[in-house]
Amino acid sequence: MQRVKIAILGIGNVGTGVWKILTMNKEQVSARSGYDIEVAKVLVRDKKKKRNVEVPEEVLTDSFDDIINDDSIKIVVELMGGVDPAKNYMLKAIKSGKHVVTANKFALATCGKELAEAAEEFGVKLNYEASVAGGIPIIHGITESLTANKILNIVGIINGTTNYILTKMTLNGMEFEDALKEAQQKGYAEADPTSDVEGYDAMYKIGILSSLSFGGYIDVDSIYREGITSINSIDIEYAKEFGYVIKLLAIAKQNDGLVELRVHPAMIPATHPLANVNDSFNAIFIKGNAVGDLMLYGRGAGDLPTGSAVVGDIIAILKNGLDKNVERNTFASCPLRIKDMEDTRCEYYIRVTASDTPGTLGAISNVFGGNGVSLASVIQKGKGDVNVPLVFVTHETLEKNINKSIKEIKAMESVVSVDNLIRVENI
Amino acid sequence: MQRVKIAILGIGNVGTGVWKILTMNKEQVSARSGYDIEVAKVLVRDKKKKRNVEVPEEVLTDSFDDIINDDSIKIVVELMGGVDPAKNYMLKAIKSGKHVVTANKFALATCGKELAEAAEEFGVKLNYEASVAGGIPIIHGITESLTANKILNIVGIINGTTNYILTKMTLNGMEFEDALKEAQQKGYAEADPTSDVEGYDAMYKIGILSSLSFGGYIDVDSIYREGITSINSIDIEYAKEFGYVIKLLAIAKQNDGLVELRVHPAMIPATHPLANVNDSFNAIFIKGNAVGDLMLYGRGAGDLPTGSAVVGDIIAILKNGLDKNVERNTFASCPLRIKDMEDTRCEYYIRVTASDTPGTLGAISNVFGGNGVSLASVIQKGKGDVNVPLVFVTHETLEKNINKSIKEIKAMESVVSVDNLIRVENI
Ligand SMILES: NC(=O)c1ccc[n+]([C@@H]2O[C@H](COP(=O)([O-])OP(=O)(O)OC[C@H]3O[C@@H](n4cnc5c(N)ncnc54)[C@H](OP(=O)(O)O)[C@@H]3O)[C@@H](O)[C@H]2O)c1
Ligand SMILES: NC(=O)c1ccc[n+]([C@@H]2O[C@H](COP(=O)([O-])OP(=O)(O)OC[C@H]3O[C@@H](n4cnc5c(N)ncnc54)[C@H](OP(=O)(O)O)[C@@H]3O)[C@@H](O)[C@H]2O)c1
Repeated sequence: MQRVKIAILGIGNVGTGVWKILTMNKEQVSARSGYDIEVAKVLVRDKKKKRNVEVPEEVLTDSFDDIINDDSIKIVVELMGGVDPAKNYMLKAIKSGKHVVTANKFALATCGKELAEAAEEFGVKLNYEASVAGGIPIIHGITESLTANKILNIVGIINGTTNYILTKMTLNGMEFEDALKEAQQKGYAEADPTSDVEGYDAMYKIGILSSLSFGGYIDVDSIYREGITSINSIDIEYAKEFGYVIKLLAIAKQNDGLVELRVHPAMIPATHPLANVNDSFNAIFIKGNAVGDLMLYGRGAGDLPTGSAVVGDIIAILKNGLDKNVERNTFASCPLRIKDMEDTRCEYYIRVTASDTPGTLGAISNVFGGNGVSLASVIQKGKGDVNVPLVFVTHETLEKNINKSIKEIKAMESVVSVDNLIRVENI
Repeated sequence: MQRVKIAILGIGNVGTGVWKILTMNKEQVSARSGYDIEVAKVLVRDKKKKRNVEVPEEVLTDSFDDIINDDSIKIVVELMGGVDPAKNYMLKAIKSGKHVVTANKFALATCGKELAEAAEEFGVKLNYEASVAGGIPIIHGITESLTANKILNIVGIINGTTNYILTKMTLNGMEFEDALKEAQQKGYAEADPTSDVEGYDAMYKIGILSSLSFGGYIDVDSIYREGITSINSIDIEYAKEFGYVIKLLAIAKQNDGLVELRVHPAMIPATHPLANVNDSFNAIFIKGNAVGDLMLYGRGAGDLPTGSAVVGDIIAILKNGLDKNVERNTFASCPLRIKDMEDTRCEYYIRVTASDTPGTLGAISNVFGGNGVSLASVIQKGKGDVNVPLVFVTHETLEKNINKSIKEIKAMESVVSVDNLIRVENI
């Protein structure tokens, strides 16, 4: 059996998973890859820190130079996270002729084009199955299995933290803050949960999937993004009454060369397969012009599921023979044309607090009508208080019509506040 | 752009789908494969038959010699079905150095080892993503994406015809015969539905998946197989009362080098994701020792979904360069050790018709107890008739204990008939 040396940058959550899989499935990994894999170096910040796996002292290093200067290391597995210094380490590895495997959605979504171009130039592979939806083979799915398809749209639940929180709010009636605290205690949310709950994580991931599906790069900051912090238990309740469940969706659609991209909470029919994707599970719905509807469901995070994808990527490099890996650049060189959010169409749920005076409901309805928004249902909740909640659900309409309506409604004397706006996706 | 010639054997359902995709997604297929693909020959039985796509007259042939003797044809796409002559045509193509793509589960399940060994020997690729679950990338999933995992078990709804029939019986209260007729009218079932409704089709597919997952070949006839013809609307009703849905499952489990393989209808919890896989959709649940639970859901049949997988396989051959495709034989050379069905463990639903006399229920329960079968519930349906239906649901027990019990129960004087036995899978 041939031997190959690899280096792992970072042995936190995912790094630990990779180490465990390389140990527990050693025989199978060798058989499938054709190589006996030796983890020659593991880069960390703090060599003294207690680890969950036993890494021999001589393998641990806090200097990237030990790795980049070692020509016997053929694959660099980047599992540190963040753009800086991860991106530079990956570029250096690529330029030294080392193949790169990474789980880093942040670096890929923001610098994927540069990394992929470098990999193509230097004839090495850049594999990143783990960067989106952990153990779910969505990157492979799009780039290999569905490659004969024009991808028409993608609708995904691709952030486990927010899905865990929304599940607790939906099934256990918890409030956002309590559900977040529980998620943190269970290790599903970070101490600083911003990236997850504000939708950045999902934004990076849908950015990567769009580049691969539609064949162009995008500026991720041009993706419309809303988190789940404004979702209230009252909205979850009302959603239930209408037969919906609230999920944080990442949506990408292509039509006439124009790509629609958005990350936001949405009400989806309680009967849709995505509605039953609970806890920290992820799922991605894809529609291709040949395959039709396809859904992939599984664990989007965690040491072993994510490690499963990383080790799969390592095997993919090895089994073709280390030297035969030049591949076309997937983050194609032209930018995608992104549709203006104002021009997107959706149905909307809008919750308003207004004074319980005759004519208020009618007046608000008129504002919608005046802006070309037709209403599917209007419900006044409660009765007799000075102020009452009003809930409107619209038929499909343009985002700009909604925005204009909301502006006008907010200015009405009888309106106390527009409390929430949640898109309704009748997928 | 380089050009490559391919031949298609058979242009029925799937062949038509492949032809359509190569036409409608031509530009993308070229970009992803690096080749301009020309379908140089299409083999049919009857050149005069009206086709759903316009195949130029000079492309149609009824002689395989036109294809095998043409050295400019580099890939043969077998979409005829059946073992004879499909298998021989594939072997001849392989031996002439042509790559082979096929959707033929029957030929693969029975002769996969021979075909794969020949492909390895002659340095060509044998791709067959379409052979299991149509457009769902399950073959790729197992052999590539999950390759770092030990697969622990697979539970699949992999026959669209039976799933369509069971869905109609469950949601619309239809009887088997009527649902089958409707399936035939809609093109979901063949005039002779035996292969589907008796579970042969699912048996071939789970055979292929097992070989790939567990790394050995199997004699498909050693797979335990039951169809859905004995499922009665009354069983569907009772299942509902217990919170279950009846699906035709294909199950493969591995434990201590022993593989458990079975195809049969089963009651599964109505809340399980597989319970909501309806109509002709397919879905496959896989548990890997790293990735955990994973589910793939989509269209398991139909011209375009199946064609999507076939064209994906063609692109996979081309994009690596036509000459670099030697790969390890996936239908490994050792046989898998199959567990005796008598030694498998399950929960069971058993429906009996017996005389409504005092003591009958107790006597039957005693037979179960005497054979080490513990009962989870016993229900007598109806009252006052001479004969009444009794329904037993057991706790997990050995198949052989059930078989012994059934034999004894059938021999009881107060028992008119044992009407049905359906396994209960609390997945
Ligand atoms: N967690 C998941 O389930 C998951 C799922 C999919 C993708 N990902 C991605 O996988 C990557 C890793 O995530 P993780 O959860 O495993 O992170 P983590 O637990 O925070 O671990 C990061 C590791 O990288 C090391 N590291 C960080 N910065 C470093 C630096 N400048 N120099 C040297 N070592 C450094 C850390 O060393 P010390 O231990 O010494 O501090 C630590 O071992 C991220 O890109 C993440 O987005 C994670
Ligand atoms: N249908 C699906 O959705 C589906 C899904 C997955 C996999 N598959 C598999 O795909 C394969 C094809 O299925 P299908 O539904 O497309 O079959 P089909 O509609 O019956 O078409 C078979 C085609 O093969 C030709 N053919 C059959 N025997 C031949 C022979 N001895 N010589 C020359 N031509 C011959 C027929 O020619 P004539 O037209 O002249 O008779 C016809 O064009 C099968 O292996 C099936 O199991 C099918």
